[in-house]
Amino acid sequence: MQQPTSLPRRRLLAGSASALAAAGLASFQSQAMAQAAAPAAKPLPGYAGFKNADAVIVHSSTTIETKRSAFGSSVVTPTNQLYVRNNLPTPSESIVADRDAWAVQIDGVKKPAKLTVGELKKLGLETVTMVLQCSGNGRAFFPTKPSGTQWTVGAAGCVVWSGVPVREVVKALGGVADGMVYMTGTGGEVLPAGLDPKSVLVERSVPLSAMEDALLAWEMNGEPVPLAHGGPLRLIVPGYTGVNNIKYIKQLAFTVKESEAHIMSHGYRISPPGSKGDPSQPSVQEMSVKSWINSPIPEDGNQASGLVQIQGVAFGGMNAVKGVEVSIDGGKTWKQARLIGPDMGKYAWRQFVLQAQLPKGTYTLASRATDVKGNVQPETRGENQSGYNNTSWADHAVTVTVA
Amino acid sequence: MQQPTSLPRRRLLAGSASALAAAGLASFQSQAMAQAAAPAAKPLPGYAGFKNADAVIVHSSTTIETKRSAFGSSVVTPTNQLYVRNNLPTPSESIVADRDAWAVQIDGVKKPAKLTVGELKKLGLETVTMVLQCSGNGRAFFPTKPSGTQWTVGAAGCVVWSGVPVREVVKALGGVADGMVYMTGTGGEVLPAGLDPKSVLVERSVPLSAMEDALLAWEMNGEPVPLAHGGPLRLIVPGYTGVNNIKYIKQLAFTVKESEAHIMSHGYRISPPGSKGDPSQPSVQEMSVKSWINSPIPEDGNQASGLVQIQGVAFGGMNAVKGVEVSIDGGKTWKQARLIGPDMGKYAWRQFVLQAQLPKGTYTLASRATDVKGNVQPETRGENQSGYNNTSWADHAVTVTVA
Repeated sequence: MQQPTSLPRRRLLAGSASALAAAGLASFQSQAMAQAAAPAAKPLPGYAGFKNADAVIVHSSTTIETKRSAFGSSVVTPTNQLYVRNNLPTPSESIVADRDAWAVQIDGVKKPAKLTVGELKKLGLETVTMVLQCSGNGRAFFPTKPSGTQWTVGAAGCVVWSGVPVREVVKALGGVADGMVYMTGTGGEVLPAGLDPKSVLVERSVPLSAMEDALLAWEMNGEPVPLAHGGPLRLIVPGYTGVNNIKYIKQLAFTVKESEAHIMSHGYRISPPGSKGDPSQPSVQEMSVKSWINSPIPEDGNQASGLVQIQGVAFGGMNAVKGVEVSIDGGKTWKQARLIGPDMGKYAWRQFVLQAQLPKGTYTLASRATDVKGNVQPETRGENQSGYNNTSWADHAVTVTVA
Repeated sequence: MQQPTSLPRRRLLAGSASALAAAGLASFQSQAMAQAAAPAAKPLPGYAGFKNADAVIVHSSTTIETKRSAFGSSVVTPTNQLYVRNNLPTPSESIVADRDAWAVQIDGVKKPAKLTVGELKKLGLETVTMVLQCSGNGRAFFPTKPSGTQWTVGAAGCVVWSGVPVREVVKALGGVADGMVYMTGTGGEVLPAGLDPKSVLVERSVPLSAMEDALLAWEMNGEPVPLAHGGPLRLIVPGYTGVNNIKYIKQLAFTVKESEAHIMSHGYRISPPGSKGDPSQPSVQEMSVKSWINSPIPEDGNQASGLVQIQGVAFGGMNAVKGVEVSIDGGKTWKQARLIGPDMGKYAWRQFVLQAQLPKGTYTLASRATDVKGNVQPETRGENQSGYNNTSWADHAVTVTVA
């Protein structure tokens, strides 16, 4: 399927993407284009030019996936390999020119205030490691081929965030106002002109309880949050899928009702197959227990017979991982894998490894994680119209040949 | 002091460095040059071109320091900000062209063998986070101004390594041969012609016990170990200063005696002031408990009065950190700081923070760490001729102005 593409054609594609970006609709149109076009390697968009092109798959100007072969075994996903999924065109570089001057309006507290990043830095400091995962990671494994980016495993990474705990900000502002039920974050993207703002605004509500571990983060993996990942300031809601972690956050409000933005009311809903999203359906928020194998995989080519280290990553979403089992026969039998490397907290992923002797043959390798609450990664996906929350171990299995 | 330098002059400096590199003596000569030259910003050497120039200080073509203001608060030091200290010119890029083909000779075991990285990857997998710190970090604080790079705090970082445990390799080769006392690693640098190899070879011996947690690592911070940091394969000896973590390792031998290479026998010794290094003096190996403050620091400019988050890093070398105290009055009084963020194991550093209310004035901020064995970071440095192992909390204190 993968055809070498001549440079002129690649440049042409890049030019088209720029034209669409200028029209303010790069996100939706270029994604449609990406799916229509042949699967040739696309160039990195400018705002993500620092990514390692060899480690990622560029799906469109707003969707970039980490290759399964690039995850490595060192827990933290390097920034230059981390996936990108932006719901709107990336804001101008000008918003990171003076990072400390970026301001966020805090509402739904006793004393609402507009605080700059510089002011937030005085209020408190915490560091949280967490799995950042797109709601649609694993969508490509749905046989129904839901519309949207065809992510396999690489719309996820384990990332270290530093910032001020939201609870400290709230405390400094007198506490949450009475009767509030949700924490609602609003992104600072420039909205395409001529459209109803509610139809495009990136605004998401999560339960008030998510405030406890949430951060307003200015640092990611030891550097100021890159523009591509929501800098100068991003709302971090550990355990929640990517879309709930609002980039370029310009308002954080404690609210009685969920946001009425389309992305909240109709987008990111677990809709029965064949139906459209609506507010009565469950919202895509908390992640659940999941794992997958990163080595060996078919992309590595045939394996030599003998000893092999079967390795991958496992996480529990809201809960720490307790253990991981690995199967070399497609799930008929399982062996307990060994968790290795540092435990970076319950929202991070763990590395696992199972050492196995593999004679010549073909093996279907699968992994199945269990969290500390006893939740076991399921064999089958939960069917839904948009291909969200795929945690199926069967879907994530790989078949490798030992020659 | 810091003068803007015109581009032509910077290019000229770069050209001189290249000429020295061609002569095979870049390390020693350019270092001498660096100290003689005015402290103008130097360009990054080619092999380290991926470093973030804004986050580092280029001392010479083989010595690059992380700025104190760049450490951030996210535990792991990003690869593009990590310090570099090479004892010899960096090998050619050709050695990382086929990483799995790089071979290391294992000697002093029951069944000596030459193993490629590809073969090592089959034998086992572990991930270790550790502080990598140059033996001379903090040298600039010695009032005697010992010769060598004038590192302040930035010849250190917290790094995640993945590779095979040395003990697994040894097990696969029948165990350590009888009577061996040291683990000796030899670097694969190309030696300058016309010199006695022993005078320049990078070869270090550590006690056999260090084998327990040592790795032969092919991955650093989630990516193949960069050439600048010893790729394709580096010996990692957690808790030991940088020089003991042999880059481009080509031989790992269990030996009865310490290496006779000059860098072992006379270099990196704790010599009394005024004397030269010799084998009777203690070798610079295990690190001890140390901490420093990274924010606020004078480089940040004057602070606004009010609440401030005083933050930094602390590590115990061979032992985990138990706690950190912070002083705002130059060590007269101390308060317990809070450890924040993930605990990545006993060889990693911890982040600490102390929240303080600072009215207008001048403050000398200091930090003092204690490890789980009860070792307390000392007030004074241990004087020695070459400026090694500076852990003095007084030397690492900073004076800031609140205006």
